[in-house]
Amino acid sequence: MTQPAKHTWKSKIHEVIYEADTPAGKIFDVILLILILLSVALVMLESVANMQIKYGTYFYIGEWVITIFFTVEYILRVISIKKPSAYIFSFYGLIDFISTIPLYLSFFIVGTNALLTIRALRLLRVFRILKITRYIGEGNKLTKALKDSRPKILVFLFAVMILSVIAGTLMYIVEGPEHGFKSIPVSVYWCIVTLTTVGFGDIAPVTALGQFIAMVIMVLGYGIIAVPTGIVSAEMAKKDTVEPDQKGLRLNTQVCHNCGARKHQDEAQYCHKCGSSLHYD
Amino acid sequence: MTQPAKHTWKSKIHEVIYEADTPAGKIFDVILLILILLSVALVMLESVANMQIKYGTYFYIGEWVITIFFTVEYILRVISIKKPSAYIFSFYGLIDFISTIPLYLSFFIVGTNALLTIRALRLLRVFRILKITRYIGEGNKLTKALKDSRPKILVFLFAVMILSVIAGTLMYIVEGPEHGFKSIPVSVYWCIVTLTTVGFGDIAPVTALGQFIAMVIMVLGYGIIAVPTGIVSAEMAKKDTVEPDQKGLRLNTQVCHNCGARKHQDEAQYCHKCGSSLHYD
Amino acid sequence: MTQPAKHTWKSKIHEVIYEADTPAGKIFDVILLILILLSVALVMLESVANMQIKYGTYFYIGEWVITIFFTVEYILRVISIKKPSAYIFSFYGLIDFISTIPLYLSFFIVGTNALLTIRALRLLRVFRILKITRYIGEGNKLTKALKDSRPKILVFLFAVMILSVIAGTLMYIVEGPEHGFKSIPVSVYWCIVTLTTVGFGDIAPVTALGQFIAMVIMVLGYGIIAVPTGIVSAEMAKKDTVEPDQKGLRLNTQVCHNCGARKHQDEAQYCHKCGSSLHYD
Amino acid sequence: MTQPAKHTWKSKIHEVIYEADTPAGKIFDVILLILILLSVALVMLESVANMQIKYGTYFYIGEWVITIFFTVEYILRVISIKKPSAYIFSFYGLIDFISTIPLYLSFFIVGTNALLTIRALRLLRVFRILKITRYIGEGNKLTKALKDSRPKILVFLFAVMILSVIAGTLMYIVEGPEHGFKSIPVSVYWCIVTLTTVGFGDIAPVTALGQFIAMVIMVLGYGIIAVPTGIVSAEMAKKDTVEPDQKGLRLNTQVCHNCGARKHQDEAQYCHKCGSSLHYD
Repeated sequence: MTQPAKHTWKSKIHEVIYEADTPAGKIFDVILLILILLSVALVMLESVANMQIKYGTYFYIGEWVITIFFTVEYILRVISIKKPSAYIFSFYGLIDFISTIPLYLSFFIVGTNALLTIRALRLLRVFRILKITRYIGEGNKLTKALKDSRPKILVFLFAVMILSVIAGTLMYIVEGPEHGFKSIPVSVYWCIVTLTTVGFGDIAPVTALGQFIAMVIMVLGYGIIAVPTGIVSAEMAKKDTVEPDQKGLRLNTQVCHNCGARKHQDEAQYCHKCGSSLHYD
Repeated sequence: MTQPAKHTWKSKIHEVIYEADTPAGKIFDVILLILILLSVALVMLESVANMQIKYGTYFYIGEWVITIFFTVEYILRVISIKKPSAYIFSFYGLIDFISTIPLYLSFFIVGTNALLTIRALRLLRVFRILKITRYIGEGNKLTKALKDSRPKILVFLFAVMILSVIAGTLMYIVEGPEHGFKSIPVSVYWCIVTLTTVGFGDIAPVTALGQFIAMVIMVLGYGIIAVPTGIVSAEMAKKDTVEPDQKGLRLNTQVCHNCGARKHQDEAQYCHKCGSSLHYD
Repeated sequence: MTQPAKHTWKSKIHEVIYEADTPAGKIFDVILLILILLSVALVMLESVANMQIKYGTYFYIGEWVITIFFTVEYILRVISIKKPSAYIFSFYGLIDFISTIPLYLSFFIVGTNALLTIRALRLLRVFRILKITRYIGEGNKLTKALKDSRPKILVFLFAVMILSVIAGTLMYIVEGPEHGFKSIPVSVYWCIVTLTTVGFGDIAPVTALGQFIAMVIMVLGYGIIAVPTGIVSAEMAKKDTVEPDQKGLRLNTQVCHNCGARKHQDEAQYCHKCGSSLHYD
Repeated sequence: MTQPAKHTWKSKIHEVIYEADTPAGKIFDVILLILILLSVALVMLESVANMQIKYGTYFYIGEWVITIFFTVEYILRVISIKKPSAYIFSFYGLIDFISTIPLYLSFFIVGTNALLTIRALRLLRVFRILKITRYIGEGNKLTKALKDSRPKILVFLFAVMILSVIAGTLMYIVEGPEHGFKSIPVSVYWCIVTLTTVGFGDIAPVTALGQFIAMVIMVLGYGIIAVPTGIVSAEMAKKDTVEPDQKGLRLNTQVCHNCGARKHQDEAQYCHKCGSSLHYD
């Protein structure tokens, strides 16, 4: 990839932070990823009572180190891009903001600490490193297969919902509150638990009629599971046959300096979204 | 769509109530849908004990308001169609009737209140509003795939049933009433719970032999789940290849004034069922 | 179908009992089916304690009536066929015998009563009545798809078994007898329960490490479920494309008078197995 | 297959131990298989408390007999191959070593006995006997289908993990430690249990909001199960169409005397890996 001749400090930061195909960019991304994983692990461990008692202070320090790093990173991201609003209101921009703010908020509001796990969403960035083009391609294929089968899935979900409400009411009438089916919403909850074959067993039918209805629901659920699978399988098989034509283009990890758009092709010279040059000068 | 020149009040009501492609018809359908959802929510919340205590009176008033609306709607539907019996004994006509009557019945018979959830079935009307042609098309495709694989599914269900009876008896002999397998029907119930991978855990084998048989049943159930999935997948893949030819026709939401038939094509001038003109005059 | 000119009483009985395409044969089959269903229902209800106390005598009488009918039917089947051994040692012949004998045995050995549910296997005859050619065709297709994917399924089952033994041992070491993992066989049982996503919950990991391993097993099981489904789906899709060629031949329900072979084509004049004429004379 | 003219004792042992297509080799493999199965069964039974009390001594003796046999076999495998290191550090070589050593170790370290179940891995050898070429082919196909869909599966697993962390935290906040959701890691564990439709029921939501979130997770899990299935199905269908071209070559069970490489074709004269002659001389 041809790089611009003159490098300002802004363009350098932009390259390191936003791109993953230069050595510096790669190292930055790996460090970022490790810190995100660490921060998520920290929040999880903090919630374990006897961990918190033993290592509470270390957790607190670690939390602050990571938050400060994230704050600096966020500020750099905002100033190194030509059009900051494009980053700030983008999907990743909002996640970055929301995952940085909770610790500051915890000074004012108690309990916001748990919000720190939103940082897990930042893990989505991981795909940028692991041979990004290939994985994003797979992810897109998955997303596309799901999107294309959305009307089918909506019809299916709607049918499941109506079935659950009817069957839940039936179970409420048959079993009644004395066997754990306390109200219709709880019965509908039980119905979903059974239809999806999860079957916690916190509530279970006791009367003969209730067990019979449960059997019908279970066999139905067993049959119904075939429907979304069939939908996605068919959609996926279709996708795979179309694939060869799409395989030609290879995306890289460059990010437009002007509007922050991603997914530029390898030979692209201008941003496919705002039309400004991809070379920083 | 060309509309008739002379509008009687009956034809106007017919248009508003039965069709969803005029603005008035759309608004009516959305209001109807909201009321149906509200009424289902009401019945569900009423069954929650402490909700009923707090807001019981409001629930009761809301229930009556909705029931009166449904009653008026039902009467209008009957009088605005030329051949009322065609509507009254149609699928939706029966559902409309059954979902209106329970509150009136509750004067005479105690406990019919819970029947109000049958109103959930009225939710099926939702498909008429959400870009109907597309969703009904998807729904039809799903239904067709299921209908075409019916003989395969019946054979499969029959095999599952015979297997459950045999395995249930076996478990009853091995585990016996002292471990929760109280009778053969209960054992068969447990068997279905296990085969469908629901696994409530209200009954679980205790003896070594019982656990061994349970393992065999589970692995079988695990393998068997592949069968309906495979059936529907194959059927669906077939459907998708046939699809293009069917895509040509677009259905609208018009309903015949004479016989109440639905699913007319966009250019249709006469009802495809009874042959009378689709124009009201 | 051309029928033999001279009818002896044996040939008449043969026609009624073994074939389902004459009116008399159809009526006989339906009666037989109802009696089989009744007898299975009887055995199941007998096992329900308070049913047995109330209606025990009726159950006993009903049991005997059915057993005598089955005995007479069995004797007629044996004497109306030219080569009795062909029937006696056939699959259905053995099932018929085993499902007739238990009540007689109960005079000598206590507890054989429960064996009466083997009669459920006789239900397989139902396929002969319900438009047999179509359903047997579907059944054969299912069986063939399963048989063709047998090597794949065996490899898969073997892998699952090895995985279960290893993971079960691991859980036994990690959780130990004090958390319900009493021995390696019990741990392997728990492992199968988890891998197949049944999840009874009678045994559940308590330690952090145990829960972590359980998570890995569950996600594995979740992924593994895709394998048999994929196998059968692929096999089934293949079957469906081959189908048209096989559709040409139509089987009927005739049974050879000499050797008892089934599945003769509609125009067949001679048994495809022993070569003797299908006309009784 | 043409065999070498001069047989040294080493080449004879090599033939018996490493190959499965001579009668002696087949018998050796069957004996080995039985001993492996026996040894795994022994370890499993030993862990059952009352079995250990009754038959402990026999288990101990059996264990030693098998271990001595395995030791001898291991030594013979090492000395009968020209390049011992090729065997010792191969997959099977390591398993053979690890599954032989635990009993010796148990003299020095207490508790290593349970490691004996690693012997289950040796069961993988069973595939060499059961018409190996065919089954290895199927196994390879399965492995290949899984390998080809690895990027898709990784993306999928990653998405599941992120979803679990977020939903687990949500449940921890909503339900809290008083309803069993003791910490975020435990909540994430519960989330995986629910998403995979295992549903132990050791932890179950109690509050209305918790049950609502659980319902969403379950329906999601139900939908998500379709994704890996769809992936593998599509991959498998692809594999099956490519199959015919690969079917031409047949592998045998010969093992190179020099480097221990397997999977030689039936007409192969030289090792496909190190190039040395397959004839021992």
